[in-house]
Amino acid sequence: MNYKMVFGTVGRVLAVESVLMLLPAIVSLLYNESAIWAILVTAGVTFLFGALLSMLCRKSSSVIYAKEGFAIVALSWILMSVFGALPFVLSGEIPNYIDAYFEIVSGFTTTGATILRDVEIISKGLLFWRSFSHWIGGMGVLVFIMAIMPKISDRSMHILRAEMPGHSVGKLVPKAKSTARILYLIYIVMTIVQMILLLCGGMSLFDSTVISLGTAGTGGFTVTNAGIGGYSAYCQWIILVFMFLYGINFNLYYMLLIKKAKSVFKSEELWSYVGILSVSTVIITINTLSSTGVLSDTVRHSAFQSVAFMTTTGFSTANFNDWPSLSKALLLILMFLGGCGGSTAGGLKISRFVLMCKLISREFRKMLHPTSVHTVRFEGKQVDEKTLSSVTTYFALYMLCIFVVFIALSFEPFGLETNFSVAVSSFNNIGPGFGSAASHWGDYSAVSKLILSFSMLLGRLEIFPLLITLSPTFKYKK
Amino acid sequence: MNYKMVFGTVGRVLAVESVLMLLPAIVSLLYNESAIWAILVTAGVTFLFGALLSMLCRKSSSVIYAKEGFAIVALSWILMSVFGALPFVLSGEIPNYIDAYFEIVSGFTTTGATILRDVEIISKGLLFWRSFSHWIGGMGVLVFIMAIMPKISDRSMHILRAEMPGHSVGKLVPKAKSTARILYLIYIVMTIVQMILLLCGGMSLFDSTVISLGTAGTGGFTVTNAGIGGYSAYCQWIILVFMFLYGINFNLYYMLLIKKAKSVFKSEELWSYVGILSVSTVIITINTLSSTGVLSDTVRHSAFQSVAFMTTTGFSTANFNDWPSLSKALLLILMFLGGCGGSTAGGLKISRFVLMCKLISREFRKMLHPTSVHTVRFEGKQVDEKTLSSVTTYFALYMLCIFVVFIALSFEPFGLETNFSVAVSSFNNIGPGFGSAASHWGDYSAVSKLILSFSMLLGRLEIFPLLITLSPTFKYKK
Repeated sequence: MNYKMVFGTVGRVLAVESVLMLLPAIVSLLYNESAIWAILVTAGVTFLFGALLSMLCRKSSSVIYAKEGFAIVALSWILMSVFGALPFVLSGEIPNYIDAYFEIVSGFTTTGATILRDVEIISKGLLFWRSFSHWIGGMGVLVFIMAIMPKISDRSMHILRAEMPGHSVGKLVPKAKSTARILYLIYIVMTIVQMILLLCGGMSLFDSTVISLGTAGTGGFTVTNAGIGGYSAYCQWIILVFMFLYGINFNLYYMLLIKKAKSVFKSEELWSYVGILSVSTVIITINTLSSTGVLSDTVRHSAFQSVAFMTTTGFSTANFNDWPSLSKALLLILMFLGGCGGSTAGGLKISRFVLMCKLISREFRKMLHPTSVHTVRFEGKQVDEKTLSSVTTYFALYMLCIFVVFIALSFEPFGLETNFSVAVSSFNNIGPGFGSAASHWGDYSAVSKLILSFSMLLGRLEIFPLLITLSPTFKYKK
Repeated sequence: MNYKMVFGTVGRVLAVESVLMLLPAIVSLLYNESAIWAILVTAGVTFLFGALLSMLCRKSSSVIYAKEGFAIVALSWILMSVFGALPFVLSGEIPNYIDAYFEIVSGFTTTGATILRDVEIISKGLLFWRSFSHWIGGMGVLVFIMAIMPKISDRSMHILRAEMPGHSVGKLVPKAKSTARILYLIYIVMTIVQMILLLCGGMSLFDSTVISLGTAGTGGFTVTNAGIGGYSAYCQWIILVFMFLYGINFNLYYMLLIKKAKSVFKSEELWSYVGILSVSTVIITINTLSSTGVLSDTVRHSAFQSVAFMTTTGFSTANFNDWPSLSKALLLILMFLGGCGGSTAGGLKISRFVLMCKLISREFRKMLHPTSVHTVRFEGKQVDEKTLSSVTTYFALYMLCIFVVFIALSFEPFGLETNFSVAVSSFNNIGPGFGSAASHWGDYSAVSKLILSFSMLLGRLEIFPLLITLSPTFKYKK
């Protein structure tokens, strides 16, 4: 384990975070808010700490192995949140540090669950910081590290593998740094386009900016108590479309850029994603039509909630908590599935789900024809047995983690439905739960908030990096 | 596909069922009940149908392949239930055929969920038949077929594999028929011992007989509205111990018989089973102590509910539905786990759970040391990759089935907690659910009862036999 390299890199990540904090400071300045001092002080402290760490651990090899990659990812997310929580506490807007830590972990992990009963008491600068953390987290702390680690190139695919959610269709660009830059560019352009489209719909500049940042990260923080339901139908459709787009594998956008549209439209994962969302929208529309009455509204709400849950964004336009059991059950299933691999969405990922369905189908064939050879193909390529084994093992671990979080939450006085949905929602980085956790999670105890913060980090980093880094044996074994 | 062989065997199974129906008929005679005619008429019809089928399909090969084995198992369970439901309808005690079918499927699948709001209106003969179906189902229709299929020997391991829940520690006896006879004998002796011990506790002959039959099958039907809670603490302890014993891999009993006690006490599955139950009992005791007050009662109820849910028996001595969230959450998890492989219990099985935990641990080691060779050992033997892949794929299919049943139930007006627990409970053959489904499932619609019947069969037969037999493509492919 190369500690110097790990802490040096984490130091640079914190330095960049401090620079990024200048943006919310500018927002605070524009709105003439006192919170600006809290942000500036935090930025200063974070910069000093990061720079010191980076300087103390300057001399380091440029080769990163899996365990270093895991440690960098895990420590970056934890420490970015440790510092990111400070402005809320220093400004007194969220006086309790655990609450503030929960809130910013929910930001960086793109969960979007809030402990705030009234979001409108928070100043504009801090609301911006909260949603900006979605944007930063969404694309992954790692792609972000790529841009500031010029000396590491080829071997850094190790880290990318630790961070990139799910499977990438192909290694598009040989150098990780170039891949990161391309993905980054697509991300920025999409954010700006959404902002402009929302502005055209009459949304204010501030709202359209933060909502676009939150959509990009498939996060889910809103800035008014009315939430997305308070905006016009046009704005809701725009947000819906962009949530959908951010749930797609970003490699496909790159394919479009290099004019390989044909292979994009052959993507099994894309069609599975579209298919599941369509079926869910149709069923929920039929199921809820009688209570709402107006078809166009019902379709919009059904599609919006399906996309919001499946892409793990967690925005809401309707009071889904009062929907009939069938619709709620469908939303719960979508929470598990998540978006496509290589997107900003959390969850299990469609790629894994499709691969598991294919494995199940193969198991049936094996039973009937034990002597034949049965291979599994995905996106036109044969998938090797090691990958298949990793996918199913990941699923077992994933379910185990959710059940452990669920048990850990059960000390709370809420019912099974609320606790189970919150466990699933936190681990898959969605945001809302059912029952009393539908709009905010402020009623949970401090211990539960720490458990939920851990659950959000665990789910966002796809379990392994965090557990391996925190495991006491990992530093001794070679 | 050898249709003659399949239908011939199923015919013989039905003939045996008709003979077994004479036992409840005798009970009806002793209690001088009019239901005796319903039972005798059914026995006659079943015998005629079975004998006819068997005669029409007399000439058949003695080699059974997987698909024939699957078809025999699936059709036997379905048809045994089709005929087994008749006495309830003919006697008018459960006038609706779908209700009666649900009830007897719940019996043969050892689920023990009932649609009866008042179980005491049912005559003794039919109460006996209901619990007797647990006993028949518990040991598995296949072991039962083994005893009446003398001409098939070695190759019939194909069927055994289709029926035996989970993995067997080793193939103890080379001939399936001998294996079946040994397991059968252990089963009968255990049932009689439990009966005698319950009689010693002052339980009536009728009650101790049916409760022993229900315990043996890890079923869960009771014969009074008070349920097991109505019996003395001594009787509850006896039932608890026997539920625990029936949840153990029967191969271990055989090991004890041939004086290989050492290998029994080295069984990883056994110790995992004991460990999980102990932890659950301790936690639930602490969690519920404040509301009950008396330690000895609390320990008994906690242990009883843990064992009842984990062995998928589903008896209850306490109103667990009103327990705190933590205890209910634990019971829900135990519902998934199930008993040991090779026991009469349903569920996922401890062996699979332990193997998945080992796979997860291997995945961590693989991440850190990608070039090393990592094997998985279980019960002292190395497990091959094919088996490991089957286990995780089975788990994926298992979760998928539970979610599909859950969605299918969501048309009902009950909440998510009730529907989810009923989906889990039916698929794992437990019996009680939470919420309004804690004592009976009579409020579900006819369509849902059919879905639940299917779910119980699917779970009891470990998914593949039923799905392969019902799949339209299975007869065309070679």
